[in-house]
Amino acid sequence: MAGDSLGKIFRVTNWGESHGPAIGCVVEGCPPGMDLNEADIQPFLDKRRPGQSNLVTQRNEADQVKILSGVVDGKTTGTAISLIIENSNQRSKDYSEFAKLYRPSHADFTYQQKYGIRDVSGGGRSSARTTASNVAAGAIAQKILSQLGVEVVSWVESVGEINSNLATEKVTTELVESNPVRCPDQEAAKLMEQKILEVRKQGDTIGGVVRCIVRNMPIGLGEPLFDKLEADLAKAMLSINASKGFEIGSGFAGTKMLGSKHNDIFFKDDDGKIKTHTNNSGGVQGGISNGMELDFKVAFKSVATLMQKQATVDLQGNPIEYQGRGRHDPCVLPRAVPIVDAMTALVVCDHFLRNKVYA
Amino acid sequence: MAGDSLGKIFRVTNWGESHGPAIGCVVEGCPPGMDLNEADIQPFLDKRRPGQSNLVTQRNEADQVKILSGVVDGKTTGTAISLIIENSNQRSKDYSEFAKLYRPSHADFTYQQKYGIRDVSGGGRSSARTTASNVAAGAIAQKILSQLGVEVVSWVESVGEINSNLATEKVTTELVESNPVRCPDQEAAKLMEQKILEVRKQGDTIGGVVRCIVRNMPIGLGEPLFDKLEADLAKAMLSINASKGFEIGSGFAGTKMLGSKHNDIFFKDDDGKIKTHTNNSGGVQGGISNGMELDFKVAFKSVATLMQKQATVDLQGNPIEYQGRGRHDPCVLPRAVPIVDAMTALVVCDHFLRNKVYA
Amino acid sequence: MAGDSLGKIFRVTNWGESHGPAIGCVVEGCPPGMDLNEADIQPFLDKRRPGQSNLVTQRNEADQVKILSGVVDGKTTGTAISLIIENSNQRSKDYSEFAKLYRPSHADFTYQQKYGIRDVSGGGRSSARTTASNVAAGAIAQKILSQLGVEVVSWVESVGEINSNLATEKVTTELVESNPVRCPDQEAAKLMEQKILEVRKQGDTIGGVVRCIVRNMPIGLGEPLFDKLEADLAKAMLSINASKGFEIGSGFAGTKMLGSKHNDIFFKDDDGKIKTHTNNSGGVQGGISNGMELDFKVAFKSVATLMQKQATVDLQGNPIEYQGRGRHDPCVLPRAVPIVDAMTALVVCDHFLRNKVYA
Amino acid sequence: MAGDSLGKIFRVTNWGESHGPAIGCVVEGCPPGMDLNEADIQPFLDKRRPGQSNLVTQRNEADQVKILSGVVDGKTTGTAISLIIENSNQRSKDYSEFAKLYRPSHADFTYQQKYGIRDVSGGGRSSARTTASNVAAGAIAQKILSQLGVEVVSWVESVGEINSNLATEKVTTELVESNPVRCPDQEAAKLMEQKILEVRKQGDTIGGVVRCIVRNMPIGLGEPLFDKLEADLAKAMLSINASKGFEIGSGFAGTKMLGSKHNDIFFKDDDGKIKTHTNNSGGVQGGISNGMELDFKVAFKSVATLMQKQATVDLQGNPIEYQGRGRHDPCVLPRAVPIVDAMTALVVCDHFLRNKVYA
Repeated sequence: MAGDSLGKIFRVTNWGESHGPAIGCVVEGCPPGMDLNEADIQPFLDKRRPGQSNLVTQRNEADQVKILSGVVDGKTTGTAISLIIENSNQRSKDYSEFAKLYRPSHADFTYQQKYGIRDVSGGGRSSARTTASNVAAGAIAQKILSQLGVEVVSWVESVGEINSNLATEKVTTELVESNPVRCPDQEAAKLMEQKILEVRKQGDTIGGVVRCIVRNMPIGLGEPLFDKLEADLAKAMLSINASKGFEIGSGFAGTKMLGSKHNDIFFKDDDGKIKTHTNNSGGVQGGISNGMELDFKVAFKSVATLMQKQATVDLQGNPIEYQGRGRHDPCVLPRAVPIVDAMTALVVCDHFLRNKVYA
Repeated sequence: MAGDSLGKIFRVTNWGESHGPAIGCVVEGCPPGMDLNEADIQPFLDKRRPGQSNLVTQRNEADQVKILSGVVDGKTTGTAISLIIENSNQRSKDYSEFAKLYRPSHADFTYQQKYGIRDVSGGGRSSARTTASNVAAGAIAQKILSQLGVEVVSWVESVGEINSNLATEKVTTELVESNPVRCPDQEAAKLMEQKILEVRKQGDTIGGVVRCIVRNMPIGLGEPLFDKLEADLAKAMLSINASKGFEIGSGFAGTKMLGSKHNDIFFKDDDGKIKTHTNNSGGVQGGISNGMELDFKVAFKSVATLMQKQATVDLQGNPIEYQGRGRHDPCVLPRAVPIVDAMTALVVCDHFLRNKVYA
Repeated sequence: MAGDSLGKIFRVTNWGESHGPAIGCVVEGCPPGMDLNEADIQPFLDKRRPGQSNLVTQRNEADQVKILSGVVDGKTTGTAISLIIENSNQRSKDYSEFAKLYRPSHADFTYQQKYGIRDVSGGGRSSARTTASNVAAGAIAQKILSQLGVEVVSWVESVGEINSNLATEKVTTELVESNPVRCPDQEAAKLMEQKILEVRKQGDTIGGVVRCIVRNMPIGLGEPLFDKLEADLAKAMLSINASKGFEIGSGFAGTKMLGSKHNDIFFKDDDGKIKTHTNNSGGVQGGISNGMELDFKVAFKSVATLMQKQATVDLQGNPIEYQGRGRHDPCVLPRAVPIVDAMTALVVCDHFLRNKVYA
Repeated sequence: MAGDSLGKIFRVTNWGESHGPAIGCVVEGCPPGMDLNEADIQPFLDKRRPGQSNLVTQRNEADQVKILSGVVDGKTTGTAISLIIENSNQRSKDYSEFAKLYRPSHADFTYQQKYGIRDVSGGGRSSARTTASNVAAGAIAQKILSQLGVEVVSWVESVGEINSNLATEKVTTELVESNPVRCPDQEAAKLMEQKILEVRKQGDTIGGVVRCIVRNMPIGLGEPLFDKLEADLAKAMLSINASKGFEIGSGFAGTKMLGSKHNDIFFKDDDGKIKTHTNNSGGVQGGISNGMELDFKVAFKSVATLMQKQATVDLQGNPIEYQGRGRHDPCVLPRAVPIVDAMTALVVCDHFLRNKVYA
């Protein structure tokens, strides 16, 4: 049943497959009268685009976005914005042999079982290519948020065992974008780059963690019961391909802290604002933003497509060998950063607009 | 705005505050003709109930559920089921002093900022008491699932640094329920119990991790884009009070594994069913259940209310000291188990019914 | 599947059957900080209550509403408001014989076919008693609207062939409430009353039309495509038991007018406001309120339960005779007025809050 | 806020403006494995297309639909179907003068007030052109329904004072399509045609009524409370541009019937099926389909754009004269028929899929 939409007021409806003529989305709830054109969106897509460095897939997609509705004379009208991205590089012959088998840790088996049919080329809707539309929608959300002074910054916190060690206060978008890994700690970035290239040489893949903070968060976003801000963020993050975990604030490590250590103590800052000394809460208390930075992490597993032989089964369950071909990422982390940015912006923007009801 | 409902076909709408006359929920989408009465629900509430052991709050709530609609002559009619639980033990005077200050890591500050008003007694909607209604709704979901042979089992995997070491295959509800901590590893359970009592003696609190598996999962549950099964699970888990993280399958640890290690290799079992040797996917691939066990973890922070003095601020932001009173849990983990069970059952049952559309 | 909720921001979830222990609803989205207690709601229920005059059913229900959540110290908290009304007068034995047959133009047959089970007593969810909960929810919406100066007035426009002839400008709630029919034209009211009593004497029933206007409508309520204000009103009205039609502004009669006559010509009034000379649009243009009065009508058929013998079939389809018993309305119109008021208030209040997103 | 979607399981999300590059929609919930290509959809669009006869606007739009997703190798995959229709004939200069004034009974004033901005060219989202996307989506719904043997037939029942007099049993799609008015009564059709041409000669416009029946309706579609089948139909119909009313079964005329006349008496037919002798209920009882024909009517007002001078106001409210230009319909009725067909199919198909949950 219908399940391609996210958000209640600011709402994205995503459509399209990896190897069809185009992908895209419909964005509802954008406030009217805002300047908007493709140039506001394209830079975000360029960050997610394949082929941007030697760390990612060499599939060549221009990923040029077009606005088809909701904008007149360069201004939003307040009505549904339709975005479309043509699939310029559909090499579906690459995939013909996969029709006969289930690739391990792909969605081949589950789609076939659920629908009785599957789009063999590129995995259909299970392709990470569908995230491009979310990045485009997220670019609109980020424009709305940036006008409020809200800043979303994501980066690669770890690749395999290698961690970024830069304090979050020092992380800037410029630092993140200064290397192809998107790790703001330049030394760690180098090690990560080496690791990714090494893994690729082996025909293997590796995972990692993206961290995201949101600065200048408005207070009061989130709803009490099920639509807590962190619950909606968790859903958005776990909807990203290859993500396996989400934690906010102290997260899993925080389960080991005593309450006397974990509690975030309030104080009044020099501007008379109530803040907390620590931020183990990660910026939410009772499901509602408290004005501190949102601070959360998303775990991404290693990519399932390997350039080495693996055992698997054919459609009848008989053993068969298979080796990935085509152009795939050895590590999704660098390209996951703009996706996490986008999904975060979508959720925060939706809750910002939801909260206007109380104004 | 409206945000008290979870699920699309099997849908719970939760209402009520800790210290009002009652709490409850409306459950839509339960199939007609199923035997149902209060005795199907009460045992689940009894597991969540305060006062059940010396490890949890001594607040004394009978938590007796009543069915007010949707059942006639002991059978569901297919229409909305209304459940109500009276608050028998409302000691709201306990809370009067808290009206003047913001308790650290509680929702006092965020509710006041969002709504301009807050329910001082017991935290209003931010109270974990609201989860009782979800447990009641979850009991109905669990009855539906158990008739399908689906079994949901949650347990305490860790308290602070102490871990359960029992293999998941050996975990049974009986083992989980055989001690007040709800850890199926009896030795770990003893250590956890000691730890909780020790922490309580210090007026402090401690966190931990709940693990949940779902056995005999139907294949095909979950939707491609945003309503992936793990995304809806993540949302449900992060909507539980005090939860700070969610991971499925290999989770955060899996980010360190190479793809060649992480991929779950398919094989045909003796019954001719296609299964995987490992389950790093945690039972979902491409957002859709693959028939292996669902396997995920939820992180719970230490309880915010301490029986020791803490610094905080009053409503004007001036420093003030505060010490928790009343009856609170030193560790939420034992009582979190039935809540995780319930939220899991709600999500799986909703997706089971959603998937019937394809039948 | 879930379908017991109406509204997106101001949202009612309705539960309960005619002959169970209670009925009620959950109201989400009410702004925080508003004074609210049972006395704000009860008068609206009293207007809908059975037994209020000799024109309506003599079933004796006190219909006392209780607020179970969402209000603390007489003020709304901004969270879900739970309302409950006990069924004080459950005479389910009255209905035992109906278990064996399908009453004509009732929901017996369709419920049995849909669910394979039905609540024989009083028709379960198909009973008009479920509208009491909507009236209670509507009372909250009406309080919100009245604070904005918005006034909802419904009345009986016709009973059978007898029409009210009072100009809408002259209609007041006082006039409507000055007679048991709820027709503001006192002469027509007398004729209607006679007609209803005459029809009742024959064991028969009769239908009619309720008209509703909303004065001081805010401009801008309604959304472009599917959630047009009149579309949401039409849905709300057709969800009322026994309603068979909805028309707004010129309605069906307007289909015979030329465009040159039908168009509502704009002018600037003495306060500098842009208004229209006529109101064939009924207060909406392009799905959005234009500040003129909302003006629409709802058709109600005659009640299906007759106090005379009718042919029908038993569960196997064999012919059988049946005669209504118990206490039923000979004409729903007088009691439909507060229901139309309530449903209107729910829709307008929801769209008012939806429109705040653009503020 | 988001309001461009209709349906819960089979769900359409509509986007686009009259004078932008394209319009379109996303259709979710279509069952997998169904043959589908553009040729299944195009004939329905051709019925709604401008320029098809001398009774409708001469605006020349090819209205060629393209499927961008959700179909692989001619079969639906069960995932979101994206449909797009290019606007080939955008004459936005026609509209420049309208930027300075509010056209009577158009959405100019309400859009400007709601959004503070409006798409002057062709009315933006308020243009009836947006219904083309719904017709395309409806074509998919009609294909699903036709495979179940369900037939949707709409026709022009009246234009102004001229009525069709053909019994509904005799109405066929062939008869409806045999004349440009789409009235199956050929004599009435001629009179209607004359009337429309006469009205057009005067630069005026005229309204009418579309009637729709659905044959071979499955029993059990619709939900008890708010999502009654007739309520969802009413919403869908009132969301069509220029519609002012909806009635089902006996409708407004039925309000004058006594219950003893209005009740639909059950009987067992020769196939052992339970049916009713009359169909005053219009095919629904208690909000749920009873297997009889759905039978309802939709009122359409005369078109607002006249080819004669009218008084109106400029943006400051000052009097100004205005005369429509460009290419407009003198009567929407002929083109409303495929739109009513489509909206009906969307609602019935959604409820058919919703009802599968009970299977």
